Order: sequence, then C-alpha cells, then structure tokens
Amino acid sequence: MTASANIITLTTDFGLRDGFVGVMKGVIAARAPQAPLIDISHDIRPFDISGAGFLVEWACSYFPEGTVHTVVVDPGVGTARDVLVFETRGQRILCPDNGILSLLWADRAEPCRLVVAENRALWLNDISGTFHGRDIFAPLAAFLATGGDLDRVGPPREKPAVLLPPPLIDYGKKEIQSEIIYIDRFGNLVTTIKRNALLEWLKERNATPSETVIRLGTTCIYGISDCYSAVEEGFPVVVFDGYGRLEIAINLGRADRVLNAVIRDRVTISLS
Amino acid sequence: MTASANIITLTTDFGLRDGFVGVMKGVIAARAPQAPLIDISHDIRPFDISGAGFLVEWACSYFPEGTVHTVVVDPGVGTARDVLVFETRGQRILCPDNGILSLLWADRAEPCRLVVAENRALWLNDISGTFHGRDIFAPLAAFLATGGDLDRVGPPREKPAVLLPPPLIDYGKKEIQSEIIYIDRFGNLVTTIKRNALLEWLKERNATPSETVIRLGTTCIYGISDCYSAVEEGFPVVVFDGYGRLEIAINLGRADRVLNAVIRDRVTISLS
Amino acid sequence: MTASANIITLTTDFGLRDGFVGVMKGVIAARAPQAPLIDISHDIRPFDISGAGFLVEWACSYFPEGTVHTVVVDPGVGTARDVLVFETRGQRILCPDNGILSLLWADRAEPCRLVVAENRALWLNDISGTFHGRDIFAPLAAFLATGGDLDRVGPPREKPAVLLPPPLIDYGKKEIQSEIIYIDRFGNLVTTIKRNALLEWLKERNATPSETVIRLGTTCIYGISDCYSAVEEGFPVVVFDGYGRLEIAINLGRADRVLNAVIRDRVTISLS
Repeated sequence: MTASANIITLTTDFGLRDGFVGVMKGVIAARAPQAPLIDISHDIRPFDISGAGFLVEWACSYFPEGTVHTVVVDPGVGTARDVLVFETRGQRILCPDNGILSLLWADRAEPCRLVVAENRALWLNDISGTFHGRDIFAPLAAFLATGGDLDRVGPPREKPAVLLPPPLIDYGKKEIQSEIIYIDRFGNLVTTIKRNALLEWLKERNATPSETVIRLGTTCIYGISDCYSAVEEGFPVVVFDGYGRLEIAINLGRADRVLNAVIRDRVTISLS
Repeated sequence: MTASANIITLTTDFGLRDGFVGVMKGVIAARAPQAPLIDISHDIRPFDISGAGFLVEWACSYFPEGTVHTVVVDPGVGTARDVLVFETRGQRILCPDNGILSLLWADRAEPCRLVVAENRALWLNDISGTFHGRDIFAPLAAFLATGGDLDRVGPPREKPAVLLPPPLIDYGKKEIQSEIIYIDRFGNLVTTIKRNALLEWLKERNATPSETVIRLGTTCIYGISDCYSAVEEGFPVVVFDGYGRLEIAINLGRADRVLNAVIRDRVTISLS
Repeated sequence: MTASANIITLTTDFGLRDGFVGVMKGVIAARAPQAPLIDISHDIRPFDISGAGFLVEWACSYFPEGTVHTVVVDPGVGTARDVLVFETRGQRILCPDNGILSLLWADRAEPCRLVVAENRALWLNDISGTFHGRDIFAPLAAFLATGGDLDRVGPPREKPAVLLPPPLIDYGKKEIQSEIIYIDRFGNLVTTIKRNALLEWLKERNATPSETVIRLGTTCIYGISDCYSAVEEGFPVVVFDGYGRLEIAINLGRADRVLNAVIRDRVTISLS
C-alpha cells in the first residue's frame, strides 16, 4: 500500500521559532492530510538563493517520484517576480523565479516542464504581501501532491527569467578549476568537484587521490583523506563529503574562518 | 479520503536538543498513530506565556476543523495550576491555566467550551512533577485527536483563572494607540495593529498607508512600505508582516536593539 | 486502524541546517511511506556517543512496541566499525558499534537479540565513506519498520564490541555515589540517580527528600526541591527532572558554568 498523496518537502529561510513553517504545514495539511511532510532545511541563510538551490538539487535524487519540493527563499516576495513549478525526473520543484532553479535547470533531462503559477483559484483567497509561503506555495504544493494537474497551475514558460551564472567547474588536462559552492554549519567548504568525476579524471591519468594537490588561496593541501581525523586537530584536510563532493575542512575547526574563505572562492586541483 | 485522526500541533519552550519533544510525540503516536503531528514552535522563549499565546491564536486560523493545539509553556508545572481544554471554532486548545488562552478567549465565538482536565484515567499512570507535557498533555491530545469526547476530559469551567491584561489597541479618532505584542527572531517588532483594521481606519479618513506617521519612543517613521528593502540598510521601516499585523523593522538589522524596544512598548499611528 | 508501518525515530548529531536529516527521511519515505518519522534530537553534541545513548535509552520507554530507533552519532563512519541492530522489549535500536548501546545493553531483558548489519542488499547501492546515515541506516530502518525480518539484516553477535564503562551509581549504606551523566541545553546537570530508587533508599532510612545533602565538588545543597524556582535566582537547587532523575540546577542560570561541572563529575548524597 502506498500513501494516497505524494511527499512534500519544505526548504526555507524562515527558521523554526516564529511559527511560519508550522502555519505553512497547517495550510498543506488542511488540503492534503495524507501527504508526508519532510523538512530539508529551514535554516538557509536569509536570502541565500544559491544555498537553497544547492541543497534541493542534491536532495532530489534521494526522494521518490512524485515528490513535491517547496522552496521558499524569496527576497522578492511581494514584487513582480513569478512563482514557478518545474517538473523534472518525475518530481516537481515549486519556487520563486529568482535563480533557485539554476542548478536543476542546468542539469535537466528531457522531458521536463516549466509553468508559471498564475491560477489564483489554487491559492488562498487572501494573498499577503509578505508571506507567499503560506498564501501561494503551501496550497499549490498540496494541490500537486494530491494529483493536481500541472496544466491547471498556469501557462508553460520556456525557461526561468532568472538563472544564476553556473558555478565554475572545469576538468582541464593538467588541472581542475573549481570553486566553493556551499559552506556547511561547521564551516566546511564544499567545492563544485563531484567525487565520481574526480575519480574518473584521476583514473585517466593513472593517479590516485593521494597524489593530488588542492589549492585554495595560499593554502596547499596534499592528498585526499578518508576522514577529517586523518590529520591533527586544527590542520586542513580534504575529503569526499556527504554531498558526494570534494570538501576542504579543518579537523575539529572551522575552515571558513581559518582559511578566510567564502562562497565562489577559487579551488584548483592538480597532480603532485 | 481523510486521515482517521485529527492534526495535533505542538508549541513549547522545550527546544529540540534534549529529546523532550520527541518523547511527547512518542506518547502521542502510541495512542494516535494516524494523527499528523505539526510543530508550531519549540523555541518559545522560556516561560514566555504571551508569546506562545500570540503564535497559537494566529496559527489557529490556518488549521482545519478538528485540530488539537497542544501548548506547553508551563512555568507552574508541578504546582496547583489547572490544565485546560478550550474548544472554539471547531478546534481544541490544550494548555496550562496560566494566561496562554488570553487572546483566544478575548476573541472567542459562541458556541465555545472550556473544561478542566481532571480525569486522570486519560493521563499516563505515573505523573512526574516536572514534565506534564509528556504525562498529561500528550495522552490528552491523542485522546482528543482520535475523537475522544470533551465531556470525559473533565468538568466545565466558566472562564480561565488566569487571563493576561489585554494588549493595548485603540482605534481613536485622530490616533491609533498600540503596543508591541511580539518580537520575532530577527528582532522585528510586531504591533497589535491588524492590517485590515488599519486599512479600514485609513479608508474612513480618505488616507493612504503612505500618509501615516508611526511613533515608537523617540523614533518617527513616515509611511508604510511594501517590503523591508524599501529603505536603506540600517534604517527603520514599517510593513504589514506575515502575522497580518503592522510591524516595525530595521532593514537588514535588529529593530529591538537599534530602537531599544521591548514587548508592551507603546506605538502610535496618526496621519501626517 | 493501526498504521501499516512502525514508527521510526531519528537521533543524530547532524543538525538541521544542511539537509542531511531531510535526505535520510527521503530515503526512508521512498521505502516506507507509511512509517511515522519522529525526531528525538539532531543536536547531539558532535560525536557525543554517551549523550546519544542516554537520550535513546530514556526515550525508548515512551514509544510503542515495534518502534525502530535510528541513532547516527558516528565518528568512526567509513572505518571498520560495524552497524548493529539490537532488539529488546519489542523495539529495535539501529546504531554504530561504538558504545551507543551501552546503557540499553546493561539494562537488557531477555529475550533480546543483537545482529550485525552485513546484508548489503538492504543498503543503498552506492555506499559513501562519510554518510552511512543515508546509505545504510535509513534503508535498514525502512526495512525493519515495514516488517522486515531481523534474520535478513545479518548474523547474530554475542555482544557489542564497544561498551562504555558503566556510569557510577552506588546506593551505599550511608551515602549514594553518583556522577553527572548528561547536561541539557540549559546547563542543568543530570545525575545517575533515578527518582524511584532514591525515594526507596530514603524510605528504608525513614528519611524524606528534604533531609538530604547533595555534594558536587565544593558545593553542598540541602534538600530536594519541587521546582527550580524554590530558590532565589542564581542559587543552586536539586530537583527530580523530566528524565526521572536527580538534577542539579541553578535557578535561572547555568549550573555547568556556575559550578564548573562536566560529564562524569562525582555527585554524592547523604542524610543531613
């Protein structure tokens, strides 16, 4: 027996203190009581569109077909920005048209569909200027999770109006050019380098992970370790992380502070 | 198909670190496995009775009939204070008799019912002195969410023993007298002025939101904006917020600190 | 009507910001869409094996038969440590073999079973080196919660390879020797002394809780109070807490800092 409604995930920068997420869930539960609700994160840094996009793109592959991902990081709430629903690989992502879809769009597989949410009949009656998570996103997620037809949400659109510049990743002959794409709560620096792609690149060069040199600013790290504790406390270390990516960390420390690093900082890999 | 049990919401000051909320959910799930559990907030400031009451009164209107709201902010746990169940607008609110119900009670619509939880047969067998959330509230919520009869919970009571003084709101001829009723995690100052009531007041005076003057202490703010970013970073701004209320904020800053404001501080609105 | 899958609880040190818990839930929901998911805590201090074990041992008694507790505090992820499933009192606990089971094992009742998770057919296809919560624990929890047979998980084992030294508790003739076993988010110091055992010990001596002397370092506290506020702000107080244990606190303060106390510090009780 399957649940009679699809999973709805929620990703916001609302935090959990002030009741906003709870109220979104109330609106959803009133319309789709059978839909399992799963939180991805509500501690996205305020207005961090690319961070939200990164997490959701990653999370999608672990959710079943039919899942509706609701992503409300929305600095433009109340302005003329549109609300999009993107259907890809059997899942739907519901978000403002502000760049959140960038990674998913770049990685889309046909067939996929993109529509603009314009059918106000599917929203709450009273639309506030500041809380579309409750007024638009929540009822729409409930509609889609209970088998609602994407055609009824609104007209198709060719592509998102806002797409962020793609993060740097270049598997060159002698060097991989990369950048920091996400910083987790421990200050670990996640790069654009995916584990499998790097292993392939090394294999073609008859090299092993231990023969690499990773450069970030003036810091050089030799070799990829199996775990953070492969080095002494306070020393930099490079590992493959839970996102399936190459990550620069400080054992028992904060790499963002110690290495003075921010999102988009350049990281290069070569052979030693 | 509807779920075979009603929604149970949880609002506490327990935090999420020490397992107390999880254990309450275990007790509920053992008795009402079908009841969807939705968290409103577990980061109510310790013992902030009026904050909890504010959030729950607001949240209620977004939940369906039958919902059971469980509110455990309970500095008097273990003392002689009673546990109340208040039924209004088809929902039930379960809380200590310590003032949490004040806003909901002031705004009650007939028919409504109030009972004192006295029937120990509906509680856990072993009642601790410090954790009634688990021992009394959780089993009671499960009982009510699965169709349990309110009459069995305990005898009716005319009104709560503890009611907080009503927050100030006076729509005068020339001026609206208001106060700060809630401060959110970003330090934004939520007032007692509701959006629709203010718009009505302005309409009767042929005035628009941009023609208002909002005063808090020595601070004067001219006009109501559509969003926080309508002003430069660090400047005060007034908006209608997600609670449907007039809110004083600092764009990208903390209004509570910058304006040195606390709950119950006076706010006045007049025409410019 | 009962749910068609058992409850799954989750306890980790992953935090809620970076999507790890959400992705574990996605993996579970894809395999066991009917299983209610309940969070015990995701803010276990990083690598605090004994804290996780303490919370789960306590929480178990409030969950119904069939519940699957998934505990992922796993500093050894990616090393040779095993994954265990322990069946006791009709519930299953799923955790690394790193000492998390110590309290539950010491308190086990026959019949109980312990198996090593070795059947890779029940895991995700692609096992990362750093995120077994998603790759091993989540699919295994889903398997067990939907009625999967423990025999299929892996071979039996006589006992866990890693068991932490049992926390000190000695109900002596004149004195109870105890230690601090957990510190909650408010800095309250939870001891190994259980409420019922202490009341029994006092009864045998014709003494009451008010006739006790509690010693921690150079601090002496006389008598056990009903609530924190039995003393003035900033003063030490001893109560029975939500864990059913004797707890040393500072009214409206942090006992860990004020009394300079850490886990395993000695606490003694005698009669005054």
